[in-house]
Order: sequence, then structure tokens, then C-alpha cells
Amino acid sequence: MPYVNIKVTKEGVTAAQKTQLIEGVTQLLHHVLGKNPKTTFVVIDEVDTDNWGVGGETVTEIRRKNG
Amino acid sequence: MPYVNIKVTKEGVTAAQKTQLIEGVTQLLHHVLGKNPKTTFVVIDEVDTDNWGVGGETVTEIRRKNG
Amino acid sequence: MPYVNIKVTKEGVTAAQKTQLIEGVTQLLHHVLGKNPKTTFVVIDEVDTDNWGVGGETVTEIRRKNG
Amino acid sequence: MPYVNIKVTKEGVTAAQKTQLIEGVTQLLHHVLGKNPKTTFVVIDEVDTDNWGVGGETVTEIRRKNG
Amino acid sequence: MPYVNIKVTKEGVTAAQKTQLIEGVTQLLHHVLGKNPKTTFVVIDEVDTDNWGVGGETVTEIRRKNG
Amino acid sequence: MPYVNIKVTKEGVTAAQKTQLIEGVTQLLHHVLGKNPKTTFVVIDEVDTDNWGVGGETVTEIRRKNG
Repeated sequence: MPYVNIKVTKEGVTAAQKTQLIEGVTQLLHHVLGKNPKTTFVVIDEVDTDNWGVGGETVTEIRRKNG
Repeated sequence: MPYVNIKVTKEGVTAAQKTQLIEGVTQLLHHVLGKNPKTTFVVIDEVDTDNWGVGGETVTEIRRKNG
Repeated sequence: MPYVNIKVTKEGVTAAQKTQLIEGVTQLLHHVLGKNPKTTFVVIDEVDTDNWGVGGETVTEIRRKNG
Repeated sequence: MPYVNIKVTKEGVTAAQKTQLIEGVTQLLHHVLGKNPKTTFVVIDEVDTDNWGVGGETVTEIRRKNG
Repeated sequence: MPYVNIKVTKEGVTAAQKTQLIEGVTQLLHHVLGKNPKTTFVVIDEVDTDNWGVGGETVTEIRRKNG
Repeated sequence: MPYVNIKVTKEGVTAAQKTQLIEGVTQLLHHVLGKNPKTTFVVIDEVDTDNWGVGGETVTEIRRKNG
């Protein structure tokens, strides 16, 4: 009965990609630990780039510099 | 000083229901562990059905099949 | 399919109390939102009093002062 | 490689304030534990006042009473 | 720069299995979303079976019944 | 009433360092957002190096290579 939380920046993740992430993580836990897919929960959080910091600056700022 | 995080799918939870959840959890922690309600925090996260997976598929898909 | 995380300080919570918390939260989500108990997950984290801060000091220190 | 999650109520936090929080936490972890800022992640969650409870009531209700 | 948290019950997960989970999730995020493995964090929490509830009872109790 | 969760690897963080982290984060939230220190919670999680992955490998392995 695993619970997995995936946090990524909110930059256009599609419904199809979310399905792929959910399928992939569920299969991985079944494959590695024998966990039952029926009771595997996966929650994806999409975080605004203003609200995610790496190296002391926001991802918004990092994206702007690399733009 | 407990901290409780409740994650549910974002499917029309009303403000009154949120209040009931917050009251109920706070009372439960007071009743079972003697925790002071004044310093009990409850945070409710409502998760889009596209972003919650069970059994390797999204809740959006599960709802559609059961629709 | 709710997921609930309860964080309390690690101060002698018994197995019976954990069961009461799990039962109580599961019933609350069933009662308030009609959620299926079978797919309600509750995870309890017990946090060392050195690792929990309130008001800028650790719970260890707060307990010592109030001792 | 620390990971820090800051949850505050969604009450008009500006982009500049988010940057200050991210900078401040990153510096603190560098100063206290010698952690490399480049691999320090900070994620800020802004929570609706209807979804945050303290003392058994929502922050929305607390703000209304204190209004 | 994704952050992934995997919670499973503490029932003898080996170091090799942890490595497989970390590799697998990191590759999945690279494959599906093009995320850089170097800045993908994965944190595994192993939760005591007394502290995990499903269907209103602890996993300890569920295991005992199924024993 | 902020809630802050700091996750670091379990590599000998002292009680004094924990106090510094708790004080520092609490002051930062007071300084930047005017939050009341009395209702600021900080929870520190120390994660085993086997359970933390970066770049697809565990911190245990990274430390061994850099040793």
C-alpha cells in the first residue's frame, strides 16, 4: 500500500504525461517490492515556478536567465 | 502541537465540510492523545483528479469508467 | 481514496492510541465526505522532541521549562 | 541536498517575499549545516484560508472574527 | 528538479531495492518529462506497520489476520 | 501559522544545530511575512543516506565515491 508524491514545476505537464508517471511508478513498486498496484496511490503536485527555489533563487528567475 | 495533512480529490468539497473535517480531527487528537486544540494545525489539500493515481490509472479515468 | 498524515511528537503514543487515531480519521472521512474506508490511508509520524520547533524553540526545551 | 517545504496561508505573498524566503532558508542551511546552496530545494505551498485549521476552526473564520 | 517521496511500510526493504526505486523513479521522470537526473531528489520513508492504517485498521493488524 | 518541514540527511546533526535551524526559520517567517513566531511550527526530518537519492543513486553511494 505505497503512497508516492511527485512534485514537479507547473510547466505544462499534460494529462497523458501524468498517466505515464502514475503507471510507471505503480509498476516500479510492483516490480521492485511486489506491492499491489490496486493499493498504490500516486499524487502529483505541480508547483508554480515562483514557489520553487534552487540555489537560493526561484525557478522563474533561473528560467529567465537561461531564456 | 499536532500537524495533520488531509489529501482528498478536488471534487466539490464545501467550506462546511472542510470545517467539519478540521473540527473532527482536532477533537480526535484531543480525545485520544490529550493534545491542545489551540495548537493543532490541519491542512486540507484538494488534488485534481488528473493528478491522483490509484491502481496505475488517474481518478479522472476511474470516474469516467464508473460514470 | 483519501490520504491523511498525522504528525505528533514522539512521547509514548501506544499502539492502541494509534489504532484509535486511524479508526477515528477513517470514520470522519466516511461520515463527512462519504469516502470509502477501504481506500483511506492514514500515516502517523512520531517526531523526536528535538526535531519539532514551536515559537522558535524545540519541544524538548519547552518541556524542560514547563517540567 | 536539503529539501524544505514552507506552508503558509494564501494571503497575498508577493514574488519578492517568496524570493526572500527561498534565499533566507538556503543561506540558513548553508550557515548552520554547511549544505551546498546549489542542491538546496525550497518549495512554498500557499494554502487557501478555508483549507487551514487552527484550534478547530478555519483561518477564514478566525480572520472574520478578528476583522 | 523534481522531488519524489515514496512511503512504504517498514518490512525489510533492502539497500539494493532502495537503489532500484531511486534509479527507476529518476529514469521515469527523465523519460516522461525530460527532467535532469542530476537534480532529481528521491526520499524513501519506511513507516512502521503500527503507524500505517488502511480501512480503519493498522497494517500490523491486517498482517496478523492474513498471517 | 506557518508550517515548515526541513529534510536533511541523517549525518550527525546536533541538538544545537536543530535549535539554530528552528530559530532561524521562525525569525525568517516573522521578518519576511510578519508571521507570529508562537504559531510557527518547524519539523526536521533526518533521512538515512540509504533512503535519499540524487542523480539516480543513494547518498550512501555518493559519499562512498567521494570518500
